[in-house]
Amino acid sequence: MKEAEWDRGSALGWPGVIDAYRSFMPVPKDAEVITLGEGGTPLRFAPRLSSLKGVDVYLKFEGANPTGSFKDRGMTVAITMAKYNGARAVVCASTGNTSAASAAYAARAGLKSVVLIPSGYIALGKLAQALIYGAKVVQIKGNFDRALEIVRDLGETGVVTVVNSINPLRIEGQKTGAFEIVDALGAAPTHHFIPVGNAGNITAYWKGYGEYKSCGRSSSLPKMMGFQAEGAAPIVKGEVVPNPDTVATAIRIGNPASWNGAIAAASESGGSIDSVSDKEILAAYTYLAREESIFCEPASAASVAGLLKTDLPKGSTVVCVLTGNGLKDPDTAITQIEVPEAVEATLDAILTEAGI
Amino acid sequence: MKEAEWDRGSALGWPGVIDAYRSFMPVPKDAEVITLGEGGTPLRFAPRLSSLKGVDVYLKFEGANPTGSFKDRGMTVAITMAKYNGARAVVCASTGNTSAASAAYAARAGLKSVVLIPSGYIALGKLAQALIYGAKVVQIKGNFDRALEIVRDLGETGVVTVVNSINPLRIEGQKTGAFEIVDALGAAPTHHFIPVGNAGNITAYWKGYGEYKSCGRSSSLPKMMGFQAEGAAPIVKGEVVPNPDTVATAIRIGNPASWNGAIAAASESGGSIDSVSDKEILAAYTYLAREESIFCEPASAASVAGLLKTDLPKGSTVVCVLTGNGLKDPDTAITQIEVPEAVEATLDAILTEAGI
Repeated sequence: MKEAEWDRGSALGWPGVIDAYRSFMPVPKDAEVITLGEGGTPLRFAPRLSSLKGVDVYLKFEGANPTGSFKDRGMTVAITMAKYNGARAVVCASTGNTSAASAAYAARAGLKSVVLIPSGYIALGKLAQALIYGAKVVQIKGNFDRALEIVRDLGETGVVTVVNSINPLRIEGQKTGAFEIVDALGAAPTHHFIPVGNAGNITAYWKGYGEYKSCGRSSSLPKMMGFQAEGAAPIVKGEVVPNPDTVATAIRIGNPASWNGAIAAASESGGSIDSVSDKEILAAYTYLAREESIFCEPASAASVAGLLKTDLPKGSTVVCVLTGNGLKDPDTAITQIEVPEAVEATLDAILTEAGI
Repeated sequence: MKEAEWDRGSALGWPGVIDAYRSFMPVPKDAEVITLGEGGTPLRFAPRLSSLKGVDVYLKFEGANPTGSFKDRGMTVAITMAKYNGARAVVCASTGNTSAASAAYAARAGLKSVVLIPSGYIALGKLAQALIYGAKVVQIKGNFDRALEIVRDLGETGVVTVVNSINPLRIEGQKTGAFEIVDALGAAPTHHFIPVGNAGNITAYWKGYGEYKSCGRSSSLPKMMGFQAEGAAPIVKGEVVPNPDTVATAIRIGNPASWNGAIAAASESGGSIDSVSDKEILAAYTYLAREESIFCEPASAASVAGLLKTDLPKGSTVVCVLTGNGLKDPDTAITQIEVPEAVEATLDAILTEAGI
């Protein structure tokens, strides 16, 4: 690519997903857009995965978003509208990526951000990001279901906007991931691989691909290939999982909010919802770091774990969504590495140890 | 900003700093460019800092780079040339951002990446990122100075390229940060605030601003305002600090490799090298998260800590460089937050606790 081909000013000035895709957004013209420059994330060609699978594979790295996950795309819309509608505060029940995104966007909007968590459930490493952005974390004496009930009750008061996945505006923001993929490739891929937890993201991507086709910006739709973690696979099993368990904490969900959306995306597109084991997830997670130089969250690797065991027709174009940044979960990284022994400080000893 | 003004294809397709600024790069035409899409990072207007200081303040967020720090800009050049020159491996002595960048770019190039650390110095949380990208970490029985000696000896073997800051190619990549700032603003800022550790980055930015002015892409140069941490301020004190100590680990350097470069940047530009205390650094760090919704490394906040105590003339345009992503240092974040008490699971109790 030659230097002159790049309009550096615009490459640096990505305006966030609402202004980038305004005509697709349920945001009134007079609303103040609350953005942190989310979206516009890299779509990277993956040479080694492509060679391994014999098809063109691209990775959509959502860890490059302002708070390090795809949640920012939906949060810009949810918080913009919360402020437009006069909310004083926003609330969610979450210990992970949603709480971080909510806190960061609320801070930009000048709204209070409240995060409800069940008492005894507090993991500071996970919550540190929301807290540093200034979220008010409230531990309640009760379980996660009770926290969600109270979140809904708070929404009824009229002064607090709920930004959990029951807020449908989040899907409107998240669908822009599909727009960006089509804009970058010049066409929809043939297959779209994506982790499935609460199932809002697969629902959003399917909606985005559909809207782009309806208005003539693409001429085809991808098969939607969703992957749950084996220990948290309610959609695959066809029943709620009471105690979901997986290393991929961001998709550790037993009763997805967008269950029907995931089913619709898979069936309407001729795709599927399947599961991958924790072992397969961790293998894909380390493969991505070592072979494609991308460090993602364990949950993100579910899409690539799914790709690795799927046979695809020649000529396919595949996109895998990597939903979050690996730096969010250093504990899992540490379990996947070996601690080296100390060696003598001589050139020979070191060349031998390093295998050069 | 209207939708039509955005060329989404090019915004998504940033090619990395070598191809974006090819005519400024010491990279032969026939070299295979090893890139992870570094650079093209956001330059965000900071409304609250601007209001507080009465001038326009922009934040250059280098935490958005592929491995989460500005080191990626220099590493793409160093690794591209290592591969071009036939190296089998690259080596550095580092427990932080340099080791992560080296490992990720070496993995993409198909080169072995060796990281030397003094025995007993291993902090897995810091090294996890390099290890997950596949670096071979070698603990040597000796101190950090001995590790650096061996790094140099390895470079003499002819098959290993040193990618520590003694490699001058890193500055050639890092200078592109200045190019991007001028491209985005349409002119150089009047003041450039930047953390100073090893001093390679202030040296690189000053070189970049100078090259852009020389070729007519800008008509002025900024005053370079460098800030060391008080407990690691050799340049301010005018003498080596044998045991540097600061919460800002990324600038905990007692004897900077680019000491002269920092002095030249400050004096030639009419700027200065000053210091900020750990208390000031941590105050700026939490301010950035809570007021500007940017979570950076503690060392990054040294630039803003410096800005907060500097008086500037009306009409100034200020850029502060934030060198790395806050997710790299969760331990410091945890020290800055309060753990909430559990409350009863009733609406009233929660509204009271949340202060709504």
